[in-house]
Amino acid sequence: MRFALAIDLGGTKVSSSVVSEDGSIVSYSTRPTDAQKGGDWVLNRIKEVAAEALESSKVAPKQIIGVGLGTPGVVDAEKGIMLSEAVNIPNWKGRNLKKELEQVLGLPTLIDNDANAAGFGEYVFGAGKGSKNLVFVTLGTGVGGAVILNGEIVRGASFVAGELGHISIDPNGPKCGCGNYGCVELFASGPAIAQKAREYVLRGVETKISKIVPPEEITAEHVAKAAQEGDLLAQSILAEAGKILGVALSGIVNLLNPDCIVIGGGVAQAGDWILEPVRWEIKRRALPDATKVLRVVPAALGTNAGILGTAALVFRAVQT
Amino acid sequence: MRFALAIDLGGTKVSSSVVSEDGSIVSYSTRPTDAQKGGDWVLNRIKEVAAEALESSKVAPKQIIGVGLGTPGVVDAEKGIMLSEAVNIPNWKGRNLKKELEQVLGLPTLIDNDANAAGFGEYVFGAGKGSKNLVFVTLGTGVGGAVILNGEIVRGASFVAGELGHISIDPNGPKCGCGNYGCVELFASGPAIAQKAREYVLRGVETKISKIVPPEEITAEHVAKAAQEGDLLAQSILAEAGKILGVALSGIVNLLNPDCIVIGGGVAQAGDWILEPVRWEIKRRALPDATKVLRVVPAALGTNAGILGTAALVFRAVQT
Repeated sequence: MRFALAIDLGGTKVSSSVVSEDGSIVSYSTRPTDAQKGGDWVLNRIKEVAAEALESSKVAPKQIIGVGLGTPGVVDAEKGIMLSEAVNIPNWKGRNLKKELEQVLGLPTLIDNDANAAGFGEYVFGAGKGSKNLVFVTLGTGVGGAVILNGEIVRGASFVAGELGHISIDPNGPKCGCGNYGCVELFASGPAIAQKAREYVLRGVETKISKIVPPEEITAEHVAKAAQEGDLLAQSILAEAGKILGVALSGIVNLLNPDCIVIGGGVAQAGDWILEPVRWEIKRRALPDATKVLRVVPAALGTNAGILGTAALVFRAVQT
Repeated sequence: MRFALAIDLGGTKVSSSVVSEDGSIVSYSTRPTDAQKGGDWVLNRIKEVAAEALESSKVAPKQIIGVGLGTPGVVDAEKGIMLSEAVNIPNWKGRNLKKELEQVLGLPTLIDNDANAAGFGEYVFGAGKGSKNLVFVTLGTGVGGAVILNGEIVRGASFVAGELGHISIDPNGPKCGCGNYGCVELFASGPAIAQKAREYVLRGVETKISKIVPPEEITAEHVAKAAQEGDLLAQSILAEAGKILGVALSGIVNLLNPDCIVIGGGVAQAGDWILEPVRWEIKRRALPDATKVLRVVPAALGTNAGILGTAALVFRAVQT
């Protein structure tokens, strides 16, 4: 059995696991990070967490075939270099994390964007298992994703592919932080859903959401909870977000004709309250020849998707 | 030098050329078709045209390594089977054109969708030469296209990928023949541009278009001609179509991060009157990290794109 050491760098913490080739997570270690202490400090933290994950796994070091790091930001996955700043670490852009980690950890290492890693995890071990062409969507603070065609992550010419949250569904709509207008992220992200609910509550609409939480603290999770409890307003807010996501995905379905769309991220925990409207809208809009081969499913791996996908990338890259 | 025999099936005619591996068209033959005479008659016509192209090329039959057919409709390019009806030929769907042509012509044969073939032609021999990830757009009676990533045509799970004319840029817009609403095809196709011009002319707006042609005969070509002659209305109609196409392409740029977009088809002959607005809109909307590596260029091969792309597919498929 081969094992990979997978590392997941986030905004406030870094986690690591030893993963076996069949997709079992053998160990898990996590530590908080403090970006302001700088890149060298963060790299040292990564090294510590990786050492902990390795030790607690009881796997012999020589059985670890390689290391993978998933990180936010734009990553040159071929060279292993950060092409953008990320997670507030000063001067993170330009660092060759692959080379630095290989020196520190003594094993072949690869780096990839976290959404790509999570999408690849769902493709290999999760809800997309068995599919050929997968579109992965994360609905969280933002809306992101990944595209995997015939086993290959679509990275694009400058490693920024997969930014499906910034597809416009209303060219004259509100301005998005990305510079575009009417992006799907403005309607289907967690904060967008929470904001919509807050507006209703502040205008005095009766809803169970107000019984769960004060207006200023509403999150998409509260909306999902109220929907689950039968609250019609919450259900319709989620349906609207789902239908808008469905509009954007219909275009993607006509363009790429995937056989599977996996929807993950915190908002996806609303389940069918958001997934069914996505399915309705795709069915109503995309070409029947394309929708007949398509399934739209919730992510299966939760927060482990990144770790498992990073490991899967290592198993594929390292031939031993 | 290797040669391929390429065949281009259209709605009213079938053409064939012998093409050399460096992309030279050695011969050309074309004949009208009559779909109502049925599939066997059309196949026989294809055989005749192919024989003419071969004979007039003076290339020895043994130097022809294979045959390629580009055809409208949905094609299973792996098996060579028509998955949809096309060009009004009765019961065309379901026919294994690959096998039938191999029997008739005695050479390894492949079949592909005509937009895929044209896109591949531009990728290998035309405006997309040297690019890695290409999005090809045809602006004609409809709006279609093809996506080519790392040398591979993206076909999708049921061979319908590339239908970028049916991306909605206005989810509550007019209904499209495809079933969706606000598709880019409704705004950027030749007939859409002509209809827009006709509306202005019929309402009495002064424009050079009225001096070129009576309202009911206006085509996109007339609008392009008037734009070329300095007509501001014609220029703004093309700019509007270009900007709408640019909205749809911005989403594609964020999703796939191509390094090249090639725009072909009859409407693209309007040149920069339509291409510049496409470029403006992509620049304004898509992620700067993606647009910095992108060029948007007119197709270079005109109506030869299909023949050349089909030939390129043959050269790639047949290893001799």
